[in-house]
Amino acid sequence: MPTTMDLAPLFQDGGKIVLFVWDGVGGIQAGPNDVTELAAARTPNADRLAAAGCCGLLEPVYPGVTPGSGPGHLGLFGYDPVQYQCGRGALAAAGVGFDLRPGDVAARLNFCTLDDAGRVTDRRAGRIPNEECERLVGRLREAITEADGVEVHWTPVKEHRALLVLRGEGLGDGLEDTDPQATGVPPREVTTTDDSPESARTAEVMRHLLAMVRDLLADEPRANMVLVRGFAERPAWPSVAERFGLRAAVVAGTPMYRGVAKLVGMEALEAANDVEQDVRSLADAWDDYDFFFLHYKHTDKAGEDGDFDAKVHYIEEADAALPALEALGPAVLTVTADHSTPSAAKAHSHHPVPVLLSAETARRDGVTEFNEVACAAGGLGLRPSTHLMPLALGHAGRLAKFGA
Amino acid sequence: MPTTMDLAPLFQDGGKIVLFVWDGVGGIQAGPNDVTELAAARTPNADRLAAAGCCGLLEPVYPGVTPGSGPGHLGLFGYDPVQYQCGRGALAAAGVGFDLRPGDVAARLNFCTLDDAGRVTDRRAGRIPNEECERLVGRLREAITEADGVEVHWTPVKEHRALLVLRGEGLGDGLEDTDPQATGVPPREVTTTDDSPESARTAEVMRHLLAMVRDLLADEPRANMVLVRGFAERPAWPSVAERFGLRAAVVAGTPMYRGVAKLVGMEALEAANDVEQDVRSLADAWDDYDFFFLHYKHTDKAGEDGDFDAKVHYIEEADAALPALEALGPAVLTVTADHSTPSAAKAHSHHPVPVLLSAETARRDGVTEFNEVACAAGGLGLRPSTHLMPLALGHAGRLAKFGA
Repeated sequence: MPTTMDLAPLFQDGGKIVLFVWDGVGGIQAGPNDVTELAAARTPNADRLAAAGCCGLLEPVYPGVTPGSGPGHLGLFGYDPVQYQCGRGALAAAGVGFDLRPGDVAARLNFCTLDDAGRVTDRRAGRIPNEECERLVGRLREAITEADGVEVHWTPVKEHRALLVLRGEGLGDGLEDTDPQATGVPPREVTTTDDSPESARTAEVMRHLLAMVRDLLADEPRANMVLVRGFAERPAWPSVAERFGLRAAVVAGTPMYRGVAKLVGMEALEAANDVEQDVRSLADAWDDYDFFFLHYKHTDKAGEDGDFDAKVHYIEEADAALPALEALGPAVLTVTADHSTPSAAKAHSHHPVPVLLSAETARRDGVTEFNEVACAAGGLGLRPSTHLMPLALGHAGRLAKFGA
Repeated sequence: MPTTMDLAPLFQDGGKIVLFVWDGVGGIQAGPNDVTELAAARTPNADRLAAAGCCGLLEPVYPGVTPGSGPGHLGLFGYDPVQYQCGRGALAAAGVGFDLRPGDVAARLNFCTLDDAGRVTDRRAGRIPNEECERLVGRLREAITEADGVEVHWTPVKEHRALLVLRGEGLGDGLEDTDPQATGVPPREVTTTDDSPESARTAEVMRHLLAMVRDLLADEPRANMVLVRGFAERPAWPSVAERFGLRAAVVAGTPMYRGVAKLVGMEALEAANDVEQDVRSLADAWDDYDFFFLHYKHTDKAGEDGDFDAKVHYIEEADAALPALEALGPAVLTVTADHSTPSAAKAHSHHPVPVLLSAETARRDGVTEFNEVACAAGGLGLRPSTHLMPLALGHAGRLAKFGA
């Protein structure tokens, strides 16, 4: 079997698909009864769907590899996360929901501290709090809106981190980081990594821009300069419309997930990280799309916090939202995760994620409960998460027969 | 793991292999007891072999993708059907069992209707019945046996469809279709898609040939011309002898399956779509081959007809043929399908197919019944159908150790 297949020649009309991601839902055994959070939770709806549908395990990136949120989701969208990588700047833009356009150049900024001789004394400016980051970005925004005829956009991210986006004609992203990755030395000069006129022009813009920043922040006690990393344009990836024949929408209250979905051409609907409200948002747009990605964040957060009971609670909350999705009558309803976040690990982990696929066309397997152990015996087997999208298309009747 | 591996350096003598294909045998739950046809059928022999051997599920082409018969079989023969695609002409030749040789150029013909000005008024000549197609092909056969020194072979296919094969020195298949894909316009002129002298010569032959056809059929009321599509040479694929070290034979009563097997170098034995007779044909040639592909058609036909009970009946008929195959003493006996054909769907479907592998060297799993749900828990797991051939070779002792 090839690792990927051009499905476009097979596209045909079919039913609607809902991908309901319970972020980080996979776990490992822990807690008072030594079971996973998903096994501990009461999930009558997911269990019912599992019993009538088919289940399995998905491996998001590569065996043993722990996925970040971006790669984890790309896999579920049918994009091999090892093949589809984008620069840190573009990911940071996706992460804060910045609407990066083709031709824009994005980069990550770290506020830093320089001494009087211009040498870096702290590459993170003492990990300033978010409010301080916002204040500093506010100053930059007010003072610097363009450089050499190029629009300049500033966005706070978290602590010492911010996002810079340049918007204008003829820009390129072939630039080295200015972060020297060491203290006691000055920031590196802006240099290019290729010979394109676009990168050369962007380097010139950056030199002027960084001079302005240094002048502006000279009076700051800690964060008196920025280091720039990961120059990147928006990746020119084929959309889910091109690859899977889908008009797709994302309902995700957290900018990061919305951003990744937008990179593959999904349109963003209103979302609030409130599952009832988010399901209503999805329902309101039901007629306009073929595919809906609904993101549920709280399970991952509880896992990261190491809070087994909270994760169980949030799994049950997500489960309670299933009947409202079923009521819309999707041809295919899948429930899975972008990665595991065992509360015992307090972090993402490499473990495969459980998946259930509910469809009238599904072949029932023997699985009657939606949890990691039960899914391991499911009819979908253990497979790369990039398989989920073509499986959903097939079950929704959206792919014609291949060959005579 | 690579998607394919060169096994030739590992070839060694070993036992014989029988691949018994129950066409379309995979199903989904339906019928009075809401089970699959295979679960409903009494298959004491397959169940016994499953209990003593190992089982699994095979995915023929790609997750969610419904295989045609050609791709479905190529996968079972160890040929990735996405990689091994051939032109429509060559497939049509395989489909009618025409013995296409290297250097031949095949093309699909559609009988069509032209008006007095030479414009296409019906691209399918009113979908003439088979008998009419046979009569017209008879006229062509009698009148036109060669053009420009090239042998010309005509074969009826079905309704308005026929097969044309040119046989001679220095031919090529770089030709555009003459089908204009529209009515109200004349057929397209014969043009080439490459600059090779072979394609140019073939275009010249086709121009003369089509002029002869037009003169000959001028007195026909409906089918007074042909449109030509999908010029293709026999694909130059490596044979099962080269790829798997096997002298292989096919026993298939339906030309299509025999044709596909011949494209990978299997030799055709007598076959009648009567399983007892076909097993005897196989037994008669037992000493002459290492590998036998035995095709059983009726299960697929019953699935396509939506006839659950008939499919159950034919599964039981196929099962009853197993002891005669076992009596030959194959080292490996596998039973599987080229694709699923659930009677609930009345068509091929994308669902994985069950597989059982019986061999003295097999590691027994816990599976004791040959059906889709039981096989999902089998020791062979869920895997691409291209894995079956190397698994059979391994179990037959035909592959030496890899590396020290």
